[in-house]
Amino acid sequence: MGDTRNPLLVGRLQEATDEFVVAFTASVAFDQRMYRQDIRGSIAHARMLARAGVLTDDESERIVAGLQTIHKEIDDGAFTWSDALEDVHMNIESRLTALIGDTGKKLHTGRSRNDQVATDIRLYLRDEIDAIDAQMTQLLHALADLAGAHAHTIMPGYTHLQPAQPITFGHHMMAWFEMLLRDRARLRDCRKRTNQLPLGAAALAGSTFPLDREFVAQELGFEGVCQNSLDAVSDRDFAIEFTATASMTMTHFSRWCEELVLWASQQFNFVRLPDRFCTGSSIMPQKKNPDVPELIRGKTGRVNGHLVSLLTLMKSQPLAYNKDNQEDKEPLFDAVDTLKGSLTALCGLVPNIEPNLEVMAAAAINGFTTATDLADYLVKRGLPFRDAHHAVGAAVGLAIAEGKHLHELSLLELAGDTNVPVAEDVYEVLTTEGSAAARAHLGGTAPATVSAAVAAARQRIDG
Amino acid sequence: MGDTRNPLLVGRLQEATDEFVVAFTASVAFDQRMYRQDIRGSIAHARMLARAGVLTDDESERIVAGLQTIHKEIDDGAFTWSDALEDVHMNIESRLTALIGDTGKKLHTGRSRNDQVATDIRLYLRDEIDAIDAQMTQLLHALADLAGAHAHTIMPGYTHLQPAQPITFGHHMMAWFEMLLRDRARLRDCRKRTNQLPLGAAALAGSTFPLDREFVAQELGFEGVCQNSLDAVSDRDFAIEFTATASMTMTHFSRWCEELVLWASQQFNFVRLPDRFCTGSSIMPQKKNPDVPELIRGKTGRVNGHLVSLLTLMKSQPLAYNKDNQEDKEPLFDAVDTLKGSLTALCGLVPNIEPNLEVMAAAAINGFTTATDLADYLVKRGLPFRDAHHAVGAAVGLAIAEGKHLHELSLLELAGDTNVPVAEDVYEVLTTEGSAAARAHLGGTAPATVSAAVAAARQRIDG
Amino acid sequence: MGDTRNPLLVGRLQEATDEFVVAFTASVAFDQRMYRQDIRGSIAHARMLARAGVLTDDESERIVAGLQTIHKEIDDGAFTWSDALEDVHMNIESRLTALIGDTGKKLHTGRSRNDQVATDIRLYLRDEIDAIDAQMTQLLHALADLAGAHAHTIMPGYTHLQPAQPITFGHHMMAWFEMLLRDRARLRDCRKRTNQLPLGAAALAGSTFPLDREFVAQELGFEGVCQNSLDAVSDRDFAIEFTATASMTMTHFSRWCEELVLWASQQFNFVRLPDRFCTGSSIMPQKKNPDVPELIRGKTGRVNGHLVSLLTLMKSQPLAYNKDNQEDKEPLFDAVDTLKGSLTALCGLVPNIEPNLEVMAAAAINGFTTATDLADYLVKRGLPFRDAHHAVGAAVGLAIAEGKHLHELSLLELAGDTNVPVAEDVYEVLTTEGSAAARAHLGGTAPATVSAAVAAARQRIDG
Amino acid sequence: MGDTRNPLLVGRLQEATDEFVVAFTASVAFDQRMYRQDIRGSIAHARMLARAGVLTDDESERIVAGLQTIHKEIDDGAFTWSDALEDVHMNIESRLTALIGDTGKKLHTGRSRNDQVATDIRLYLRDEIDAIDAQMTQLLHALADLAGAHAHTIMPGYTHLQPAQPITFGHHMMAWFEMLLRDRARLRDCRKRTNQLPLGAAALAGSTFPLDREFVAQELGFEGVCQNSLDAVSDRDFAIEFTATASMTMTHFSRWCEELVLWASQQFNFVRLPDRFCTGSSIMPQKKNPDVPELIRGKTGRVNGHLVSLLTLMKSQPLAYNKDNQEDKEPLFDAVDTLKGSLTALCGLVPNIEPNLEVMAAAAINGFTTATDLADYLVKRGLPFRDAHHAVGAAVGLAIAEGKHLHELSLLELAGDTNVPVAEDVYEVLTTEGSAAARAHLGGTAPATVSAAVAAARQRIDG
Repeated sequence: MGDTRNPLLVGRLQEATDEFVVAFTASVAFDQRMYRQDIRGSIAHARMLARAGVLTDDESERIVAGLQTIHKEIDDGAFTWSDALEDVHMNIESRLTALIGDTGKKLHTGRSRNDQVATDIRLYLRDEIDAIDAQMTQLLHALADLAGAHAHTIMPGYTHLQPAQPITFGHHMMAWFEMLLRDRARLRDCRKRTNQLPLGAAALAGSTFPLDREFVAQELGFEGVCQNSLDAVSDRDFAIEFTATASMTMTHFSRWCEELVLWASQQFNFVRLPDRFCTGSSIMPQKKNPDVPELIRGKTGRVNGHLVSLLTLMKSQPLAYNKDNQEDKEPLFDAVDTLKGSLTALCGLVPNIEPNLEVMAAAAINGFTTATDLADYLVKRGLPFRDAHHAVGAAVGLAIAEGKHLHELSLLELAGDTNVPVAEDVYEVLTTEGSAAARAHLGGTAPATVSAAVAAARQRIDG
Repeated sequence: MGDTRNPLLVGRLQEATDEFVVAFTASVAFDQRMYRQDIRGSIAHARMLARAGVLTDDESERIVAGLQTIHKEIDDGAFTWSDALEDVHMNIESRLTALIGDTGKKLHTGRSRNDQVATDIRLYLRDEIDAIDAQMTQLLHALADLAGAHAHTIMPGYTHLQPAQPITFGHHMMAWFEMLLRDRARLRDCRKRTNQLPLGAAALAGSTFPLDREFVAQELGFEGVCQNSLDAVSDRDFAIEFTATASMTMTHFSRWCEELVLWASQQFNFVRLPDRFCTGSSIMPQKKNPDVPELIRGKTGRVNGHLVSLLTLMKSQPLAYNKDNQEDKEPLFDAVDTLKGSLTALCGLVPNIEPNLEVMAAAAINGFTTATDLADYLVKRGLPFRDAHHAVGAAVGLAIAEGKHLHELSLLELAGDTNVPVAEDVYEVLTTEGSAAARAHLGGTAPATVSAAVAAARQRIDG
Repeated sequence: MGDTRNPLLVGRLQEATDEFVVAFTASVAFDQRMYRQDIRGSIAHARMLARAGVLTDDESERIVAGLQTIHKEIDDGAFTWSDALEDVHMNIESRLTALIGDTGKKLHTGRSRNDQVATDIRLYLRDEIDAIDAQMTQLLHALADLAGAHAHTIMPGYTHLQPAQPITFGHHMMAWFEMLLRDRARLRDCRKRTNQLPLGAAALAGSTFPLDREFVAQELGFEGVCQNSLDAVSDRDFAIEFTATASMTMTHFSRWCEELVLWASQQFNFVRLPDRFCTGSSIMPQKKNPDVPELIRGKTGRVNGHLVSLLTLMKSQPLAYNKDNQEDKEPLFDAVDTLKGSLTALCGLVPNIEPNLEVMAAAAINGFTTATDLADYLVKRGLPFRDAHHAVGAAVGLAIAEGKHLHELSLLELAGDTNVPVAEDVYEVLTTEGSAAARAHLGGTAPATVSAAVAAARQRIDG
Repeated sequence: MGDTRNPLLVGRLQEATDEFVVAFTASVAFDQRMYRQDIRGSIAHARMLARAGVLTDDESERIVAGLQTIHKEIDDGAFTWSDALEDVHMNIESRLTALIGDTGKKLHTGRSRNDQVATDIRLYLRDEIDAIDAQMTQLLHALADLAGAHAHTIMPGYTHLQPAQPITFGHHMMAWFEMLLRDRARLRDCRKRTNQLPLGAAALAGSTFPLDREFVAQELGFEGVCQNSLDAVSDRDFAIEFTATASMTMTHFSRWCEELVLWASQQFNFVRLPDRFCTGSSIMPQKKNPDVPELIRGKTGRVNGHLVSLLTLMKSQPLAYNKDNQEDKEPLFDAVDTLKGSLTALCGLVPNIEPNLEVMAAAAINGFTTATDLADYLVKRGLPFRDAHHAVGAAVGLAIAEGKHLHELSLLELAGDTNVPVAEDVYEVLTTEGSAAARAHLGGTAPATVSAAVAAARQRIDG
């Protein structure tokens, strides 16, 4: 390698950059991913410079045309990236000057890589947020569909992974729906703060040229302009906030996937996952493994890690831009990729979950899941709740001792020492259907309530 | 200890709980912090049960009166907490029954500790968010005040901790302002999602009693009702989102504090911190240490840690409530305390930062900080920016070689081999004042721009 | 509050410390936990000063006696801690001077709080490591006991939570054993690096007094002396390394506890946990919840969080001591407490796990768990493994289609299109007992191998 | 794509794998990095199978020859990787069968991908640990060299970034040395636990073939054999332990780099970094930025993130292997790359740090850095330390008020109200040289002590 100094920068530095240092500090291998945004931003900048009289219209047009040519070259794989030119910005600017001559050297007027890269990342992230939002919306619909189809499907509800009360499968799916709807809301809140224009901050203090930042913001679809130049070049909140949101979403997915893995197990056998979403074993010929939910569950750690990475990165950094910030991109990019991949997988998987209705129905009564219904029955006939709780505990003990279900106990046995007149109608509340149907208030598991929740959910998706 | 089974729970379990297990699983030592919210929630629940006809008005009133008595007992330190009663909820319910007799046993009708604790935490966090919002608002005003007072104070602006361009101290303070304003916005977004009522979810599936959850929400000031009971009892998003927001804020503070520590150093000497915010050394009698910013900087790790703690906690948890979730409280509580403490410290410290005007002004010209202004000067006289950058690099090299400032070079030396007619007016742009004043567009460091930004900021604080 | 300046420090500072700052920066609320170590270290220091001629023997003895008195006062709860005296060190030194007069003021000769606190923490942590090591050793024995008792107990082995191959319960317990044995080895490696003496580093550069650091090290049981004073006062590696080790251990426990929760579920029903380790529900009278393993699983997050906290704390700190480091103690203390508590819980729980032998045995054959044995059978009769794998896949497909176990297929069906002469002896390898017994090499699940592993394990515990 | 089922696996699964799932679950893009280790492991396995009579010698030799051919193909870039074949193992096995026919299908006898991948990663990591160890050793020598050359170079020592006491630059470099020496020790401890053979665990329970695991261990240079098959396939401790060690090392580097950035700043100006390790600005022609230390500092977050990623990954995973574990590789690989890159950078940078001797010497006396020496002087003449501390505080106050250094005060002023006879010899202890030289005990900053420490360090590097 000859003079490894970046030819666009040489000036004060008296030595060529060390070759290892060139490679160590170059970001072009990963930041080239943002070339669309970089070019879009440069076009808006060039147009603004022309409006402001800093460039002539002709210069601006030639720059725009050159940039469009470069965009096509990159799209077509015909562009040669160079580490010695450090990053996506310098690679493109250098090519521009090669293409259109000295006018290309005017593009960087009134800006710095510091505000340029901040603009690129925000544009990139905004685009990705929109793509993720669309995927989340698709998945919300898939969950509502599945819930609607199974508003009446009985399954055991768990706390502490112990049978608790009968619920419906549709109700369970709507719990997943709620998590994801909040995730989408957080993503949208993050988008507001991401979609602000840093360009114009230049290196850190703004520019001596009469920049029209509001014009650039409008050209690029930004909702506003960063109000302080020092902050504009050094702020990476949006990357942290996005990654925190992605961590939360992946954590939700880890919970869903844990359940899918459990439900697909021999012992639970609550659902069947399509073979095309499973894989086999290199040694055990009988295996059908739920790889997709396992892998998503595992990928949670990846995004949590990126969140820690970004928080650690920013800790104790003085203003304004420091080279450390180059490390913001890879964690962010991988968080985006991981979240999108997991969403694609779940959008494929969720509509293909097949509940095993009989298995779930049979399981729903085991574990005395209607014990609370019995307690409520006693309360409605006058017993204080805490005493009813105690009495039913005794009835459960009796049932365990005799190897019976609660509904196999006699009226006297159910009443125990409570003096409550327990009548035949108690056996209705002791069925799983009766139990589920009785929880009919807002948010409850009753089939009719779930159906109504699904209908409301469809409005909320679009809201 | 005698029968260590929680007397409010005994029923199915045939053995007394192991004594160590009682202590290990008890949460009352830390969740008693939420007694106000627990009692407030129970009062609303009791009133709703009366409206719904589940309790008589008289029962409801006696319960409310009993709870108010307990509130006062706790306020006065006259309440005895018991580990055997596990948590704040059982402690209060047990005392209620002791106070008002069997009616107390009716309070828990139609609810479970699962929805009760979720309600308590949300109420608690909402209260704390409001307190933190108020502190942030105070600090925003303090920053705007300091910025307004120093809109004209020249200091060096840094990138890579190397002198970059002259800026104003007011501009720097406004960068801090922007960070905090975003933090407050994130906090407010988090509040929306926190302020939703879980009560009514009961154990996991809702209740067989005709609960009026919207009434309870209104009584307690919640903006809405959690729409799915499984989600309501198992969701801890709000705690994670709050802690993520707190981590971001603390990370910002770590950056400010890093700067304060740097600026208070012998070498920078840019600011003086009041003695009352510093402490000495046990061995070195001359010491005056900036303990407060150092400690805040250190506390950043604490909140990042809590964020990881909560994300790890929720990873892979199947629905609905699991005992794991008891571990949500201590990280959240400590995140709240740490953020509030740091805000109190900064609200005290920021108004008392005394910039050393002469030191900063003198430093602002070192390091050829107006080199970009010279480049812009050349550009405005026709040189492409990239060539101007190159020419100024040469001028800087000359200045270094001759031990001069840029403004000490001759016109010919400044022009170099550019053929640009450099005139006497160049020396104006080479002053720190000229440089700063020239960055007058939106977001720039010009004193007038900073003053305008401060005025706008005051509106934004209230917006 | 009057003069809030620490009376042991006043000198250069001209103002009393702000009251909030006193409370904000005080550490005595949590560092008083180290009073034993602080006093032990001071006694060794005083004795060394006498040996070095810095103190007279009489002075040294009076100091030692005073410190012993203070130790007793604290033991007895008769000591008054003061925030204004900042920390455990100043509280004790102040009390010493009150007790023995001006001689007390000589104790701090040749040391600083910087090296003093580093010494205290290391002594504290070494003591706790030894306590944890003992608990781990007890738990290792419990696991070996349980494994030894169940070397022949058949259960299903899982990969991907799908039935894979029959294993023995003893083999599974020995997997837990291996994890914990590594954890103890890591703890012991950490102890070596913890057990080094920082005292003598003074503030940062050492002392002008002729300190005999090796004598102090010997007095306090340190294995060596920190070789560089700057490093000695600023190094917190030992706290990070311990917490990383604790995180790994807790992560292991989260895996065990996940399994216990699964196994105790209605669907698995592989084990029974004693009632005294479980708790009930406030609403569902039938509940018996595995709170202890759930809570331990949840506590994993807590220790991971502390690890992140400490790493973030140290990031980018310049040498030597900074106030940030005060934040090292609470995460470390809580990591110690959490690990010890979890170990106590597991030491109680593990010996009381009751496997449901019949349930596990019945489950072990479901899911075609001996399919690999069939493949191996075919290989041993000449078929390449990859072809055998393929043939058994077909046999499994047939068995599924016909609702049979593999051993219910005919010889011809088992052979399929392989041309391998499958004989009656194949049915032996298709039993769970035959399958397990065949894996008899080092590390395998065969009962005899497990018994031998248990015997070897007992040696390794003591090794 | 046609039948996307992995042709080496088809059997039970009835559907072709979903195309997205193939891509989503494939690991070959990143695990191909381990092809050397995969082939080395397969060769050892094949040789062992021959020794055990499972393969004929001829079969084994043909397999080994085939694998060697494949190794060369991959080395030469002539190998075609396929996602449909999932991973490095299946790609190589498939190619082997293509090359040598049916014998290739026998290679997988008695093993599974579960133990195969565990073996590959451990071999890979062991190789990388050795490479890192060598880099660390080189850097230790560089630090000792620099320290040795500057054992007498005076600079200010800091606590709280405030001037504390004069130290030597060599002493400071030796503090860095100590950190790194501990890091290397931790790495070596990690190597012991990494270098254990999992192969032979097969899928999870061991194999029915008479495997000779100790032979394989010897062939591959493992120190021992994993003692439990379930643990062997599911243990990822070594990856976590390595990453924790890497996090600690990077955290140390973040501290060094923070200091280099500070020292290279205009205000400190303590060191000059070579131009070839710095880069310029796209807008500010005068810039020389310390990119290398900044970037290393930023990369700390990356490794911390990977640590969290791996801990989260393993949290709550039941035994034995789950697909989640595929996510172990990328964080580990990137932690290895990041640490190696940072070490290469520092090995280049450290020998080229040029201290500015005069600047540091001049700074060393500012801030009353010899105040402790004055206190010690008074103590040596009979004053209790705490009183001496107080008296010197007053002298410092006087010096500040009069704008003097301590050595510019008169004897009477230095003595203050102490009644201590302060004589002319006090002025010797008030020089930076006198102060440093007086700290001559083990670990102190005295030039002679530092020289001795450097000499000892050279032994310790090799120890």
